[in-house]
Parts: sequence; structure tokens; C-alpha cells
Amino acid sequence: MAKLIKDGTIGMDTFPSVASFAAAVGKMEGDGPLGHCFDYITEDATLGESSWEKSESKLQQYAFSNALSKGGFSEKDIDVLFAGDLLNQCVSSSYGAKDSNVPFLGLFGACSTMAESLALASLFVDSGMAVNAAAVTSSHFCSAERQFRFPVNYGGQRTPSAQWTATAAGCAVVSVHDKAPYVKAVTIGKIKDMGVTDANNMGAAMATAAYDSISRHLANTKQSIDNFDLILTGDLGQVGSDILVELFRKDRVDISKKHNDCGLMLYDMEKQDVHAGGSGCGCSASVLCGYVLQEVQQSKLRNVLFAATGALMSPTIVQQGESIPGISHVVHISADS
Amino acid sequence: MAKLIKDGTIGMDTFPSVASFAAAVGKMEGDGPLGHCFDYITEDATLGESSWEKSESKLQQYAFSNALSKGGFSEKDIDVLFAGDLLNQCVSSSYGAKDSNVPFLGLFGACSTMAESLALASLFVDSGMAVNAAAVTSSHFCSAERQFRFPVNYGGQRTPSAQWTATAAGCAVVSVHDKAPYVKAVTIGKIKDMGVTDANNMGAAMATAAYDSISRHLANTKQSIDNFDLILTGDLGQVGSDILVELFRKDRVDISKKHNDCGLMLYDMEKQDVHAGGSGCGCSASVLCGYVLQEVQQSKLRNVLFAATGALMSPTIVQQGESIPGISHVVHISADS
Repeated sequence: MAKLIKDGTIGMDTFPSVASFAAAVGKMEGDGPLGHCFDYITEDATLGESSWEKSESKLQQYAFSNALSKGGFSEKDIDVLFAGDLLNQCVSSSYGAKDSNVPFLGLFGACSTMAESLALASLFVDSGMAVNAAAVTSSHFCSAERQFRFPVNYGGQRTPSAQWTATAAGCAVVSVHDKAPYVKAVTIGKIKDMGVTDANNMGAAMATAAYDSISRHLANTKQSIDNFDLILTGDLGQVGSDILVELFRKDRVDISKKHNDCGLMLYDMEKQDVHAGGSGCGCSASVLCGYVLQEVQQSKLRNVLFAATGALMSPTIVQQGESIPGISHVVHISADS
Repeated sequence: MAKLIKDGTIGMDTFPSVASFAAAVGKMEGDGPLGHCFDYITEDATLGESSWEKSESKLQQYAFSNALSKGGFSEKDIDVLFAGDLLNQCVSSSYGAKDSNVPFLGLFGACSTMAESLALASLFVDSGMAVNAAAVTSSHFCSAERQFRFPVNYGGQRTPSAQWTATAAGCAVVSVHDKAPYVKAVTIGKIKDMGVTDANNMGAAMATAAYDSISRHLANTKQSIDNFDLILTGDLGQVGSDILVELFRKDRVDISKKHNDCGLMLYDMEKQDVHAGGSGCGCSASVLCGYVLQEVQQSKLRNVLFAATGALMSPTIVQQGESIPGISHVVHISADS
């Protein structure tokens, strides 16, 4: 069974498998460099729904149902579903899952939710608390823009450090099956507040949390970046990624060759106008569940340290002048058991 | 280690202890029938803070720090903190914990959060993933009223079925210690949507979820209500409690003698003007962590089935005319190991 190593790091015993995974995205994400990896691409951002919240729920349902069918699972095979999102009271997850009959544990980890949910699903399976556990999350550009910034049709100007909320959802089903990708260990994030008060510069707010969790994971498991093909953050964007590389450089560790960021992978940073990169729970979820897990499954990547990052703020508290704390949860995904 | 029994029910192996618990409440809750049970009662609803959000965070910090000190724990003893609340993006939890250095897993279960967090903390300890795990949640009348209904100074009229959001927080520390109260089993809730669209009648929206989880727990563990001294929901209030009793009556089970609801216990239903009863994450949290766990510790109650309930809605989606889904997570708390 899963065992506490130390200070937030938990090692798996049986190395549960990510038996199935799927990603559903919007048109712009489908037009990006990973477009060929996704299971479902919608041309219509509304997905035929009457509100953006319901559109986002539907995207989450597509990711969930695709992940189930790709793995030969039905809903009744899923012992627990971990889900969360960015919307107030996480409604895209609750409304997305309300017609299923699956035991449901709601999470809030902002854009770190894919790592949080995947970590919990893996721990549940490894500890015998579930045979199959699903992890799902989503974001939608239009529901997020209205809630966090302005209604889309207002046409507000964006700052260079601002990130673009992905219209995307990802779902992973963790199972006792014995096939790659395997989950080997996780590190639970700590909340880090570096005093950033600019809601248009969330990469900076989250970089320290990613640095803390990644270094803690490496130290606690007695590994170095040499043990990994890819250190994958999501979503620091360009600004946060530069800070992360700099933070490691102070420890005399050059992660620049190993590091990539989901926010820099989902879009064409030159041709698609996303400023500092992608963001939103669905960004790292779709990059992981569309592209990265597939690469590990095919042994093109052998060891990935997935460190999704979240900015734990609300517009209310930012308007009150408070700083934005960040968090990052880490999951070690491997081609080898 | 914890083991999946079936359909969302997980049995504990080692029966982890709720080694320590504490509740911090506002003046009105302190004036209620359980006032003598609470560890901290504030006369000042602001708690000296400049925003209601920060006041709520402080209440959560008080519950957490009181629970730690009562159990002889320091922050570094806590391997993981499970926390969540009602505010947009769960900011009272994130900001409440941001100055601690404790691995943090954010949850969203609306008013079911005390049961969700206690269940996860218990599962982590039972499975060796934590030695000590904390569960904390809160609500604040003023932060909730402004966010979900109207600013307090607007003085809006309340409907008879409306519930009163408690200014309260509760924290439980689950540990490998061997002393009562023990956690014996949990049942993870499923989302139930009965088509209720009235945000002022959340008891009705949640009653079916409580019925589903309680009956599922009893069936899956082959127990009946006779095995329990108290079936404790939170927070159905008067309207939802009546529906729950009726739902069980259709199964020819009379739970009325065993059932009580945190929303009916926190306030004096005759003298305090709370309409259908209390609500908010802090309501069941403070009733559990102030009163019920103490009763179990002293063997005045031997077996309690704690079924906190949450309405998984947001004002946005209710304004769009959507119905309100409910969820209820169940934790069996016992004086006997």
C-alpha cells in the first residue's frame, strides 16, 4: 500500500496504472501543435449548450466518457471520481457528474487540479480503496473570462504576462491493471505566497510553489532531475517558467533542458495570440491526458515529473488587495513498473 | 489498510482516532444551545480583519490551531491538511492555511466538506499515507450572505425555508493514536439532483443525497439504524429533515428517533431567528468538532453516523434556472475500536 515517505511525499507500492485517458478541447486548442493528440475537438465553443458553464460541464463529460470507453470501462466500474475546476463552487464538475451514479469527491486546486485528482486517484487504487478511480478537470475560456476578468464580448486588452484560459478537459482512469503508464509517487503541495498581487501575472505567483514541490519530491525520493526525461509544469507560462529555471539555477541545477510547461505546449506561442501561454485546469489536463500519457504509454518518454500548479485566488480577494498564493502537486508517471 | 467494501463504502482496518478536535464560532452560535462546547467564541464578527473573507480565514486558523494545541500537536506533525469552504475558489481555506507549512489538499463539497475532509483524513491515516491528518472547514454569515444572496446591510427578507449560514469553523485531527473517537467506515456521496431550483430551499435539494448515502452505508456495511445512537445530518434544517424522515418511512424505517440535524442543533430554533435552521460548512463542522466528538469521546454516544450534506450550486447557475444537486458523505464515528 501507498506509504508516506516524508514531508508530503507518498510512494506507491503496487504502481497503479493510468489505464485510460482522454482529452476534449476547443477549436483553438485543436488548431495548436498538439491538435492531433486530442480525442474530441469542438468547432462550437458552446457545445450546443445555453450557458458557458454548461458548455464546460459538457466538455468534462466528453473527456470522462471518452476515457471510459477507450479503456473498456463503464460508469459502474468507477469506484470514485475526483473532480474540480475553476468556476465558483466548482459547478462545471458537479453539473458534469450529476447524471452519473459514481461516488464523487469534489476538489479545489485551481489549475493544479489535474495533479491533485490524479494523485488522489492513484493513492486510492494503490491502497485498495478503489479498483478503478477517475480524475477529471476542465476549464473554458468563456466561463473563466467572464468570472475572473470581463465578459468575452467586452473585448478587454490583455497584458503581456496574462495567460490564456484553455477550453479543454482531461480525464485519467487509474486502475489496478498492470500496464504503462504507471504512477510511482506523489508529492502533495504546500501553499506558497510570494506577495504577487497582479492577477494578470499568475505564472510568477505559482513558480515558487512548483519549485518547492519539485525540489521536495526529488529530495524526499532521493532522485535528481537526471532520473526524468521531462519535468512538466502546468501552467506557469513563459514568465513563470523563466522564474522556475532561475530558482533552480540558484541551487546549481539547470532544469532548462528537462523542463517544459503545459501552458507553452498547448498553443503555438508564435502564431496563436496567447501572450504568456495557456492556463486553466483544462490546459495541463489536456496536455497530460492528450499528449504526455500517450508518449509514456509508447515509451517515448520514460519518466515524467508532472507538477501542475494552481493560483489559489478569487477575484474578490484580489480586488481587496491581497496577494495570490500558489500551490503545486507532483505526480511521477513512468513507463516502467 | 482501508478497503473498498462496495459502491462508495470503504471500511477502515486500523480504526484511526480523531485524536483532537476544536470549534471556533461567532457570537450567535456561542449564544445557542451548544455554546458551552466551543473552544473559541468571538464577540466581534470581523475578528479584527478588514474583510469578511479574512475574518472567515481567521476563524479557520483558530479551529486548526486549537485542535493542534489540544492534541499536543505542532504544525510539523500534520502530514496533510484537507480543507475547503463555500467561498468562490475556496479562499478562506487557502488563505487560512497559506502561512502554515503543511501539505494541503483543497476540497469542494459545499456544506458536506466536514464529512468529506474527515473521511479523506481517516482514509489517509488508516492506509499509512499519513500519521496525522487534519480536516478543517468554515463558513461565515457575512461572507456567505454577500456572495450567495445580498450584502448584509441590504437587510433582505428571508423566506421561511431559508437557512442561516453559521459563522463557525471546525477542525479534527485524525491520528494513528489508539483512543476514542474512532473512525470505522466511510461512504462517499453520489450527486443527486431532485430538480429543486429554489436556492432558499436547500434542505429539500439535499435530503435525497443524505437518504442515498445513509441507506447505502447501512446496506453496504450490513447494519441498520439500530447500530447507531445518532444519525446526524448536516445541514438539512427543518424542511430537509422532514423530507429525510419521510424518505426512510417509505422503506418502513423510522429514523425520527435516531435522527438529528446539525442545522437544528446549533441554534435555539424557537428563540434565535434562523428560520429553517443553520447551514454553511461551519455548521456541521462546529456541531461535530464542538459537541458530537466530545460526546463520543466520553462514551455518551457510542456510534454516530455523520452525514454532512452539501448543495453543489453557484449563484450563477441558479440564476440561469438550473436545479441544485446535492451530495452527502458519511462517516461512522464510534466510541469502540
